[in-house]
Amino acid sequence: MADRRLVGPVRIVGTGLLGTSIGLALTARGVDVALADVSPSAVALAVDYGAGRAAALDDRPELVIVCVPPDVTATTVAAELAAHPEALVTDVASVKHAPLLELIAGGADVSRYIGSHPMAGRERSGPISARADLFRGRPWVIAGHPGISYRRAAAVEQLALDLGAIPVELDTQEHDRNVALVSHAPQVVATLLARRLGGATDSAVSLAGGGLRDTTRIASSDPALWVQILGANAAPVVEILRAYRDDLDAVVTALEQPEAPGSRRTLAEALAAGNAGVARLPGKHGQSGQFSQLVVIVDDRPGELARLLTEIGDAGVNMEDLRLEHSPGAQIGLAEISVLPEAEDRLAAELTARGWRIAEASA
Amino acid sequence: MADRRLVGPVRIVGTGLLGTSIGLALTARGVDVALADVSPSAVALAVDYGAGRAAALDDRPELVIVCVPPDVTATTVAAELAAHPEALVTDVASVKHAPLLELIAGGADVSRYIGSHPMAGRERSGPISARADLFRGRPWVIAGHPGISYRRAAAVEQLALDLGAIPVELDTQEHDRNVALVSHAPQVVATLLARRLGGATDSAVSLAGGGLRDTTRIASSDPALWVQILGANAAPVVEILRAYRDDLDAVVTALEQPEAPGSRRTLAEALAAGNAGVARLPGKHGQSGQFSQLVVIVDDRPGELARLLTEIGDAGVNMEDLRLEHSPGAQIGLAEISVLPEAEDRLAAELTARGWRIAEASA
Repeated sequence: MADRRLVGPVRIVGTGLLGTSIGLALTARGVDVALADVSPSAVALAVDYGAGRAAALDDRPELVIVCVPPDVTATTVAAELAAHPEALVTDVASVKHAPLLELIAGGADVSRYIGSHPMAGRERSGPISARADLFRGRPWVIAGHPGISYRRAAAVEQLALDLGAIPVELDTQEHDRNVALVSHAPQVVATLLARRLGGATDSAVSLAGGGLRDTTRIASSDPALWVQILGANAAPVVEILRAYRDDLDAVVTALEQPEAPGSRRTLAEALAAGNAGVARLPGKHGQSGQFSQLVVIVDDRPGELARLLTEIGDAGVNMEDLRLEHSPGAQIGLAEISVLPEAEDRLAAELTARGWRIAEASA
Repeated sequence: MADRRLVGPVRIVGTGLLGTSIGLALTARGVDVALADVSPSAVALAVDYGAGRAAALDDRPELVIVCVPPDVTATTVAAELAAHPEALVTDVASVKHAPLLELIAGGADVSRYIGSHPMAGRERSGPISARADLFRGRPWVIAGHPGISYRRAAAVEQLALDLGAIPVELDTQEHDRNVALVSHAPQVVATLLARRLGGATDSAVSLAGGGLRDTTRIASSDPALWVQILGANAAPVVEILRAYRDDLDAVVTALEQPEAPGSRRTLAEALAAGNAGVARLPGKHGQSGQFSQLVVIVDDRPGELARLLTEIGDAGVNMEDLRLEHSPGAQIGLAEISVLPEAEDRLAAELTARGWRIAEASA
């Protein structure tokens, strides 16, 4: 596959979180990246970050990646197809069917367009939150359509692989139904729950814990962007929200008469179905689900954790993440060390040989 | 206050997550803890964990802490009040008004009963998930009522303080309304969202990311327990879910005709209200919200992180938590160090003097 890798120039249109992150990752791979944005200062900032150079009028890009908001994705893709008649054009918008229909309706040359959608993001937006490894280990949907050849589309698959992502081929409608379920409907559900906190007393809010914080975390997302996303994928989102509302009605009815026959059963079935649903989600540590975890017992003495990390380094193992669980006043703490799965057994053996106690290894 | 501290014996009835955690914390403080449970093997396990000793028939407890499921809380409290006529009795159930009414209706001596509710828990339940520091920095509601004197109730406040929690006085109805908002309604919302995943294709589930995982995390909670909690606090929960459903209806209507006049405005207002709601939540790092965070730039060279931790120790600052943000292939990583707020400025100065770069300090 090596000869398929992008050499560039790659033109990135829109230097927000995704565009800048792609630019950082491609630049790090030695690709010539040309950056464009309606805002010259956004381009200057992304250049300062090391995401590439400002686009020039005589650029002849091999690939154009459109990273603009959903509302302007189709028109921007059409303009790029027209301006760069030899380039393959892709985009990274969260909705894939409507832009494709709009392009076809407008007579665009879709034999050079294939939409894509990296399933990566952060609560924080904008170029200053960009990271070259944003896509690492994350799915990257490639939304095929009959108007483009497999050979052409392969360049976008290679882009995803180059950025450490996992390419997933779906047609545009399947993509939109899937993201309605795993991303767009959850946004509405979390948003409306967070909205209830608007009228809460300080006394109530002060009792909030990690559960509520997690359940409402994505409610802090950008409203302007999400109006566009929800509007562009309205039908699949409505379908899920209607089923959700039917379930909610049943729970409300049960709670209106909690002692009535069948009420507790309704609640129990809903809760059990929730258990079953959450069990279908892959991984347990967010984006670090790709790593194995070793939990090492560390005596709560100054220098012990530093010594552990030194010895992990001595063992030649790269630590991907580290979390500390530390009980104040307790005699021990727990250090959860994430490593590549293939390194786990060796590290456990090395640490055990050096006298460390392993509390827990990956299942 | 020192002379008010519990010396025991303290009798704990129910050795699940909360009972065992309280036992661990009190035992660590030198209190004589007597453990009881309907299951002798549960008691034996909690004893093995160091949460106390098995209760004896001739125990004369100063305080009884009832840590049993909500459905049997009132009857267990009544039995303990009768069996230990000199003891103060409290409980830790998530619902406070219905058990109090049930006790009064049953003629119990509520001049020796005051309900409480430590706002702490884990997704995992049972004694093996117990931790002595489970309550540290968390609110602990003390649900007063006119039938008990302030002087008596003070012993429960002291219990909360001894366990590192923050006592919060609320009457039983105010407590129940507050937890309906910050805990019980969120449980229903997350559960019903997770339920939608039950019929999802593997293709859809494989696209799930951290947002969905966070939004549905609490949906993995124990159905049997939650049927009891929701049933016991039905009226306040229904009130919130009805308002939630009205908002949901408005969003569904808007998405049914996303291009109709007013539809985008409805969506934008809902999303903005969600932003405002989530902004009301205290802290940003779950239970470590009590700490300040310093983000230090660490060169991605072997030994650098170990050197940083050694120098934090040299500075005499206790690190409460550590998170590593590590971009594979990047030249730098970020170490987020949690410390007590009063130590933050001094640590930042010490590290800067030693040549470390601080990327970010608490706002």
